[in-house]
Amino acid sequence: MNETQKSRILIGDDLSADIAAACGGGNVFILFDRRVHGLFGGRFCAEEGRMFLMEPGEDAKSPAVAGEIVAAMLQGGCNRKTTLIAVGGGVAGDLGGFVASVFMRGIDWINVPTTLLSQVDSSVGGKTAVNVGGVKNSMGRFHLPKTVYISAHFLPALPPREWVCGLGEIVKTAYLDAAVYALYKTSFSDLCARDCRAVSAFVRACVAFKEAVTARDFLETTGKRKILNAGHTLGHALEAADGHARSHGEYVLIGLYAEALLFRDDVSSEVVSELKTVVKALVKDGCPSASAGQLGALCAMDKKNEGRVSFMVIAAPGDIRELCLSPAETADRLRALAAADGFFDPIGA
Amino acid sequence: MNETQKSRILIGDDLSADIAAACGGGNVFILFDRRVHGLFGGRFCAEEGRMFLMEPGEDAKSPAVAGEIVAAMLQGGCNRKTTLIAVGGGVAGDLGGFVASVFMRGIDWINVPTTLLSQVDSSVGGKTAVNVGGVKNSMGRFHLPKTVYISAHFLPALPPREWVCGLGEIVKTAYLDAAVYALYKTSFSDLCARDCRAVSAFVRACVAFKEAVTARDFLETTGKRKILNAGHTLGHALEAADGHARSHGEYVLIGLYAEALLFRDDVSSEVVSELKTVVKALVKDGCPSASAGQLGALCAMDKKNEGRVSFMVIAAPGDIRELCLSPAETADRLRALAAADGFFDPIGA
Repeated sequence: MNETQKSRILIGDDLSADIAAACGGGNVFILFDRRVHGLFGGRFCAEEGRMFLMEPGEDAKSPAVAGEIVAAMLQGGCNRKTTLIAVGGGVAGDLGGFVASVFMRGIDWINVPTTLLSQVDSSVGGKTAVNVGGVKNSMGRFHLPKTVYISAHFLPALPPREWVCGLGEIVKTAYLDAAVYALYKTSFSDLCARDCRAVSAFVRACVAFKEAVTARDFLETTGKRKILNAGHTLGHALEAADGHARSHGEYVLIGLYAEALLFRDDVSSEVVSELKTVVKALVKDGCPSASAGQLGALCAMDKKNEGRVSFMVIAAPGDIRELCLSPAETADRLRALAAADGFFDPIGA
Repeated sequence: MNETQKSRILIGDDLSADIAAACGGGNVFILFDRRVHGLFGGRFCAEEGRMFLMEPGEDAKSPAVAGEIVAAMLQGGCNRKTTLIAVGGGVAGDLGGFVASVFMRGIDWINVPTTLLSQVDSSVGGKTAVNVGGVKNSMGRFHLPKTVYISAHFLPALPPREWVCGLGEIVKTAYLDAAVYALYKTSFSDLCARDCRAVSAFVRACVAFKEAVTARDFLETTGKRKILNAGHTLGHALEAADGHARSHGEYVLIGLYAEALLFRDDVSSEVVSELKTVVKALVKDGCPSASAGQLGALCAMDKKNEGRVSFMVIAAPGDIRELCLSPAETADRLRALAAADGFFDPIGA
């Protein structure tokens, strides 16, 4: 596995014939999100004993469920030549990719992301993981899928909350990439309204951007990939504190805005104001309930840290800065943003 | 990770000063076998909250225990720059290496094998794993330790059964490598009696051989590494059927002999007779109780298979052949070797 390897990424309005062909292609095992299987499973058939239906939701990303899938694969006669196909959102991709990375010390896999978030984000770059000890993605591998099928036909079935989740990651990407930012300034309302042409344009631009960044820094060693973590230090902490009650993109959206407030002096007023507007428009239920102290402790456990807590802050469109605080400074700044009751609430403020 | 990477392997009569220095070297986390910690732990001290005591035995090699160790590492403030140090037998190395391969998508690790078996076998080559669904090493990675400390001072404390386990893997290696075979023909009784000079000579020769083989085929893709699996298809099946009641090397010893009987026409009479003598001398409790049917089913689940069941059979010293059977043929041949009660018993036969 070297730093220039890439997945084959196919993007289209309806790739279900290709996906069905892959699922019917011999020595495969399908990991299916149960909700997605209920809606689309009829077209994608596995051989007897070669499918695992996972419960939707972040709880499935555990070492225990990974072990259950490995056991089911062994029971189904899978071997080192088996290809695992993950069909579902980011959880199915992260979990399925992790299982593929460790089943008999690593097998091929195919990713079929079915949510807006996973189509624009986690399906590209080869990160796979499960969660341990309340820390997201603390156990995982880099393990690229051989092929990624990004098919728009899954998207109309998405619940509104899942749609907002994808929007969160797209907003982040807009501040990292000029092409996505241009779309964001002209067509974001069309994307919010699920206009087909806007969706397709955003998905293609986000995937192209992420592919370029991750291909340059596959193992996240040169620092080039770090910009993808904008909003994620606080976003992951909020997500852990909230028990993953909402979905990833929504926490990222709040994280982007809250990190801008945390480093107010480094961030342009335009960015603060744009982020405030988009967060208020998309996050309907306000900030999840979490104390400043709890968030500080969770931030200090982030994988990216080496002693100090690292934040990738959007100073201006295209200008992302790594700003670090000690755990004590992090806690102090979070407390300063907290409401009178000690709970963190950048949105209500 | 490419195919020519190697660990730094240090071999000596007493490396405890070096090991103690590594354990005291800053950002480290120690995974300690509880029995080994009781005997030697005083010299190897970790910082507060930076140690996990694992229960001895194969049961520790599970996704659940791997998750517990990851959780303990997060609790202890470990990060991507942490080095994990595994101190114990093959179980500690396999489990610790697996955790290192997946903790925050992979960190450095150091292996301190404390048994004869792990010193001559699992500490070299970068295989790491846990067991799932009754199948040994079905979940794992290739992840080389940065350094391996092979120190003879741990060995006098080994219980007799653990000693026999190491002898099993050494007997296998003798049939793969001319240098080890020469020692086997002249000094095997000294090794059995734990003579220091014989132990040192065998350990060095076995490590040199295994290093050469695994460096040529790091990811086990060219087939060159396959010879190391001599005796292991049936050995692993016996081990699984027996619930890991004994240790690995003993099953390998029985597996070597039983596979020679399974392919009697392909194996020289000298090898059959030598293996029969050494198995009868070293395996005190006879063959573990397992039915031919159960063993056949377990053989069919082996990682090495691709449709047919693959056996690496010792035809003559230095002449190892991959011989394959269908699952049905495997079951038939095993039944032919079974006693009248249907139980497999090559030793009593």
